[in-house]
Amino acid sequence: MKYVLRHATILTMDESMTVIENGALAFDGDTLVYVGKDAELPSSLLATCDEVVDLADALILPTFINAHTHMGMIAFRSLGDDSPDRLRRFLLPLENACMNEELAVASSRLAIAEMLLAGIGSAVDMYYFEDAVAKVAKEMGFRLWAGETLMEDPHCDARNGREGLKKAVRLIEQYCDDPLITPIIAPHAPYSNSLSVLKEAQALAHEYGLLWTMHLSEMDFEMEKYAKEYGLSPIGFLEKEHLLDSSLLAAHCIHTSDEDIALLAKNGTKVIHCPGANLKSAKGIARCPRMRQEGVLVGLGTDGPASGNTLEVFTQMKLYAILHKNVLKDRTAIPASSVVPLCTSEAAKVLHAEKNIGSLVVGKKADILVLELESPNMIPCFDPYSVIVYSSGVQNVQHVFVNGRWLVRDHELRDVSLTWLREEFFRVAQPFFEEAKKRS
Amino acid sequence: MKYVLRHATILTMDESMTVIENGALAFDGDTLVYVGKDAELPSSLLATCDEVVDLADALILPTFINAHTHMGMIAFRSLGDDSPDRLRRFLLPLENACMNEELAVASSRLAIAEMLLAGIGSAVDMYYFEDAVAKVAKEMGFRLWAGETLMEDPHCDARNGREGLKKAVRLIEQYCDDPLITPIIAPHAPYSNSLSVLKEAQALAHEYGLLWTMHLSEMDFEMEKYAKEYGLSPIGFLEKEHLLDSSLLAAHCIHTSDEDIALLAKNGTKVIHCPGANLKSAKGIARCPRMRQEGVLVGLGTDGPASGNTLEVFTQMKLYAILHKNVLKDRTAIPASSVVPLCTSEAAKVLHAEKNIGSLVVGKKADILVLELESPNMIPCFDPYSVIVYSSGVQNVQHVFVNGRWLVRDHELRDVSLTWLREEFFRVAQPFFEEAKKRS
Repeated sequence: MKYVLRHATILTMDESMTVIENGALAFDGDTLVYVGKDAELPSSLLATCDEVVDLADALILPTFINAHTHMGMIAFRSLGDDSPDRLRRFLLPLENACMNEELAVASSRLAIAEMLLAGIGSAVDMYYFEDAVAKVAKEMGFRLWAGETLMEDPHCDARNGREGLKKAVRLIEQYCDDPLITPIIAPHAPYSNSLSVLKEAQALAHEYGLLWTMHLSEMDFEMEKYAKEYGLSPIGFLEKEHLLDSSLLAAHCIHTSDEDIALLAKNGTKVIHCPGANLKSAKGIARCPRMRQEGVLVGLGTDGPASGNTLEVFTQMKLYAILHKNVLKDRTAIPASSVVPLCTSEAAKVLHAEKNIGSLVVGKKADILVLELESPNMIPCFDPYSVIVYSSGVQNVQHVFVNGRWLVRDHELRDVSLTWLREEFFRVAQPFFEEAKKRS
Repeated sequence: MKYVLRHATILTMDESMTVIENGALAFDGDTLVYVGKDAELPSSLLATCDEVVDLADALILPTFINAHTHMGMIAFRSLGDDSPDRLRRFLLPLENACMNEELAVASSRLAIAEMLLAGIGSAVDMYYFEDAVAKVAKEMGFRLWAGETLMEDPHCDARNGREGLKKAVRLIEQYCDDPLITPIIAPHAPYSNSLSVLKEAQALAHEYGLLWTMHLSEMDFEMEKYAKEYGLSPIGFLEKEHLLDSSLLAAHCIHTSDEDIALLAKNGTKVIHCPGANLKSAKGIARCPRMRQEGVLVGLGTDGPASGNTLEVFTQMKLYAILHKNVLKDRTAIPASSVVPLCTSEAAKVLHAEKNIGSLVVGKKADILVLELESPNMIPCFDPYSVIVYSSGVQNVQHVFVNGRWLVRDHELRDVSLTWLREEFFRVAQPFFEEAKKRS
């Protein structure tokens, strides 16, 4: 399909942060073929396109990237949110007792629906049964970095980290060169895997030219363990073991010293900041403005629905801006224009995918978000970045295209029945709900 | 009109925090006549009502209360958000040059539309031309505490505080015993008014049995001024002058010592916490959990659209929970069930209005919010308070009734054309936009 979108303000999110007023954008199949002034739109494009969409002054920007989540965990949302030791009381035992492929799939479908309706076109997922999850993402037209979690303890879809690695290899073979699915190697954390599995995970990433991701410097016990056993931070430990590299996406990094940040920068390691989930679990605020200053690339993540609850990034962007302004005691710090890249252009660099996504430039993929500017909360628009970061929310997401496919049209999913997604989820999650009831 | 709402989970927000599963609720005109089990709904109510609404398992709760805002300031939204000294560079000069009754009214209409669509049925407003603003609120069916701002410096609708007081008296006479509009006396801040105006404002509140509100302990220069001139905090200064009383709603209170909090508690003074706006301006976080522990009643506010940008309280509730968990380094602190009262039952007590609003109890007013539980982000619902605080957003607001009038139906305003509101606002705001352009 060949579409032309007209009469909008386009935030290209390109290297110069070009903003095009009275802009138009066209794409042919999955590829952008025109991004510029509406007045200069070639008439040949209008003559040959399948549909022209008049946006009446809406905002166009690249779809958002959610750089860290666990889509399979929808069933846990709102369960024991404010309980002590929720991980060991609810999450791990229920996961071991009730998680299976059917539930991970039904949950991931809902998670993808939620993210699309919130303007997110790509996500990095770390969970189980990722071959089935990747299949669902592909069917729904969602761009997914699919990471099978590696963990030494027996868990719902593997007996140990080595078995997880085998699954990761199968995932890689299945999805090499897929237009939407990119495998990612995903050890859960340094402390939950043997050193040899960590090294094999890294080697696998290097062998196939892929990324790898893990939770890092997140937990108090993790900080204590590495201090006690090695006299190092977890980041220092990875550096010593040559595990800190430029294909690693380190999620959270809440606890970092200046030396840790220098190590991340030196090695080109990327950081995924999940401010909402980190605050909700009272773990602290990662020092991301300092990291970015030192050259570390940062993306934002919602974390899973059990931890961050909502899978939308408007809240994460707003939190990033206002929390760090407050930490720095400076209202001019963290301007809104420096926040939107964390879910678009900078996030795409985090994913080594800036050639394809994260900015609206001819030749790149048609991953397009349209935000309406007609709702009262979007009025007026002196600064579109401010509007996105400080005023807007999920209710303002009007259209979403991913890889040229129109997935959300006028605030509704186009090709998916939400009723069916819900019914299927509740059917499949029945044993989980029964088990959860017993424990609460 | 007589309505019955059926098949919902009702969070009554009454003193016992009663939650009714499979609940039903009925109201006749402006008054609740049934709140209980659907199975026990008297058949006479069903037989005589005008409309039965089947809610298919949605959540019912009291409409939210936004306890501090400046509705007339929509035109400032997204203008110079991250600029230094925004107040003196943009806000004050533009207000002096361009604010008039027409703009305050057009702006307030948009603000009320935005709040209704976000599930807010009542607000405390502090701005100018409040007689005209109150008229608009009444027309739109919104419950408003309308406060004419008192300020010593010449401003857009009065030459000084005393002239403002005269306007306040006229507002009181006009709206005594109105079902929707309650006048409130609103000195801008202690530092921006003479002591005699502050005392007259308080006397006026006492004479008519009304509330009064002002910004307090918000600004760094304010803290320095009272320390330097009186060796006191602003709260200590008010206490010394017998101005701290139980009809005062003190907005912000960002900077408070333990002694300040004890003074607020002793005098029954209420605090309005605006976490989003306070963080955005890098001013700090008010110590509200401590205040509540000491017996101070707290409500949440968005602040004006120039400061907090979005006029919805889902974000304020989420911020309250996660910020204070983090300050207290305790994920079990600030459970979600302790946050919802800040915009419902506790907020109603802050407004001395708990006999009428803030909880769903027979005999009270029909101020009712329905949140749908069908969108992916609302699934599942183990704990409705968690769902409200951590997962939900404006997009989930399905119906809003205020004083028995159905104002939002299926996510849309019933009696107002948004197109007209927008067009009217942009027409009226034209001189403002031209002046703003010159300054940016």
